[in-house]
Amino acid sequence: MIASILGVGTSSFGKQPHLHPAELAWAAVAEALEQAGDGPEIDAVYVGTVFGAPGVAQRALHALGIVDVPILTIENACASGTSAFHESVHAVASGRFERVLALGIEKMTDAFDGPIIPEPTDTEGRSGLALPALYAMSASRYLAKHDVTRDDLAAVAVKNHANGTLNPRAQKQRRRSIDDVLDSRMIAEPLTLLQCCPIADGAAAAVIGPPGSGGDGSVGVRSSVLRSGGLWDHRSDAAWGFELVRHTAELAYTEAGIQADDIDVLECHDAFTIGEIVTTEALGLAETGQGAALVRDGTTSLGGSTPVNPSGGLLARGHPLGATGLAQVAEICWQLTDRAGERQVADASIGVVETMGGGVAGVDGNACVIAVLER
Amino acid sequence: MIASILGVGTSSFGKQPHLHPAELAWAAVAEALEQAGDGPEIDAVYVGTVFGAPGVAQRALHALGIVDVPILTIENACASGTSAFHESVHAVASGRFERVLALGIEKMTDAFDGPIIPEPTDTEGRSGLALPALYAMSASRYLAKHDVTRDDLAAVAVKNHANGTLNPRAQKQRRRSIDDVLDSRMIAEPLTLLQCCPIADGAAAAVIGPPGSGGDGSVGVRSSVLRSGGLWDHRSDAAWGFELVRHTAELAYTEAGIQADDIDVLECHDAFTIGEIVTTEALGLAETGQGAALVRDGTTSLGGSTPVNPSGGLLARGHPLGATGLAQVAEICWQLTDRAGERQVADASIGVVETMGGGVAGVDGNACVIAVLER
Repeated sequence: MIASILGVGTSSFGKQPHLHPAELAWAAVAEALEQAGDGPEIDAVYVGTVFGAPGVAQRALHALGIVDVPILTIENACASGTSAFHESVHAVASGRFERVLALGIEKMTDAFDGPIIPEPTDTEGRSGLALPALYAMSASRYLAKHDVTRDDLAAVAVKNHANGTLNPRAQKQRRRSIDDVLDSRMIAEPLTLLQCCPIADGAAAAVIGPPGSGGDGSVGVRSSVLRSGGLWDHRSDAAWGFELVRHTAELAYTEAGIQADDIDVLECHDAFTIGEIVTTEALGLAETGQGAALVRDGTTSLGGSTPVNPSGGLLARGHPLGATGLAQVAEICWQLTDRAGERQVADASIGVVETMGGGVAGVDGNACVIAVLER
Repeated sequence: MIASILGVGTSSFGKQPHLHPAELAWAAVAEALEQAGDGPEIDAVYVGTVFGAPGVAQRALHALGIVDVPILTIENACASGTSAFHESVHAVASGRFERVLALGIEKMTDAFDGPIIPEPTDTEGRSGLALPALYAMSASRYLAKHDVTRDDLAAVAVKNHANGTLNPRAQKQRRRSIDDVLDSRMIAEPLTLLQCCPIADGAAAAVIGPPGSGGDGSVGVRSSVLRSGGLWDHRSDAAWGFELVRHTAELAYTEAGIQADDIDVLECHDAFTIGEIVTTEALGLAETGQGAALVRDGTTSLGGSTPVNPSGGLLARGHPLGATGLAQVAEICWQLTDRAGERQVADASIGVVETMGGGVAGVDGNACVIAVLER
């Protein structure tokens, strides 16, 4: 164990244009601090945000009296929240600080009326390679190479939307059928609207302390690993981005002393349906080409042997970029301490969080963070 | 000593719209790596940028073969570069990593055609409180309270522009007289154009290793402290933002075991002329109200007893936000190892870097970073 998660909290997720980012942050931080309870004051804050204006965290925290400590904003695309968590964990693990707040804030509905384009001035952005297009290429390739159908892709959305109906804070609260998913508007062939995570506003937080600290509701961190992309050969079978997940997982499992089949519950980066399928393969839950079968046979449903994205995932809980990673951490903590309500996974003792940030041809992911948590 | 700076490098600074951010980064990183020389590979990278698109650092580093390591982008307004430096230093000091690259990148000329407004959707932004206006209020207050004139303010610009002519990489390369400065266009009363730092493009880098590592050109880090704003009383004499500098300096000097009069050379946050004056007071180089005298009597000129901003500072070297802090670090390293060319400060053994990030009514600064370096 390298650290302990003493408390977690989140705002609701969804389109909340009427709320200031600080209001979202207050909901998350207050809940996390209340659970963490008495103890040393917060020594430092790491904040994940991608589009937050400079000072957004300082203003939110100032009003809570969290002042005069180092506050550092971390950006790592979709993995910004887990990057803030990772830095918080290692700041405690290395003895720099005793109690650290990890906070993710993102307010997106004001800013976006379409997909996020990685770098608009670059070749990829100019040629239309927004993230839906990149994931769509991955999906097309997957459909062409493996014995899977469009129904298999859609089944991920059906599962995660069903989970979302059991999460009162999720953005999407409606059950969807395979037909609903396939009949929704085409965004980037073969990915339809309900296979793409929605633009969201939200915040999430975690209080981190030394291993073994914290009360009954605390959760241990066995490992947290962050890696950026490598020099993969794009002509190989190492399809876009997921080689980074595979590599990061190997490191995280080794540090934690676990194997993939030890995982009882997983929150992973289902920004698009294809993302969950290939990510579960990269995480070692299935062989290459067999990820869709995990959804088809119910393995990754609530009630299955390894529930994946019980919170609803990015597809249904929503994806406020900087907050997402800490929302995943919060969900796994709730699952490991029997506080997940109607979506509770029975007897989970090892939970894993995985977030993939970015992913642009030539770089293969700005960052992947994988953390192994234990009740 | 908590760490060693093994190598530093920078791009040129100025309006360079034809260069990609990666090209700016390559110049800085290549120079820093070359100086750092053989040794362990880079274990991690902390990148300071405010306006850089997600992935900008990963793309730049990928082309240099710096891959498959944690890359974390840090934002702390104008102190983003020194925040990346600070995290790099403490990541090494705490034993997390052996060799860390701190990199600052900022490409601003494409994005700005006027002042930076802290948070356009907030009350301050809507009421016109851009940074020139905030510093102008500080300057007006200073002129009203102390026995100083507009000429005293302008003298800071005259000194730093003169220094800039000795720095081949500085954005501004022209000597300016008091009249030139006062006759330039009024930006925010009483601050004229030449009293405001210019929008710039640039990059800067430092390679950090354990204390005592590195060759002849390496520089020791005695302390690096980062703090966010406190709950100051705005009705008091603790004028905007500088109480944070004073407080951070106390911590940094104590950790380093120095006093203000031990400082041989200083790079500080002269985003506006008033900034340098009040900052030198907050850093303990002069009593309150006496900062302007340091410029008037030549104390802080090249050849004076404590040269301040020998590089030209933000006013003349330019202020590419995320790169500035690391440009300051590079300048102090060059000064402490007799590599500062025509602007060399004689016999400097203790150098200090100070950067102030943000500064908005009610928060008093997103961050201040102060580092004490020793040859």
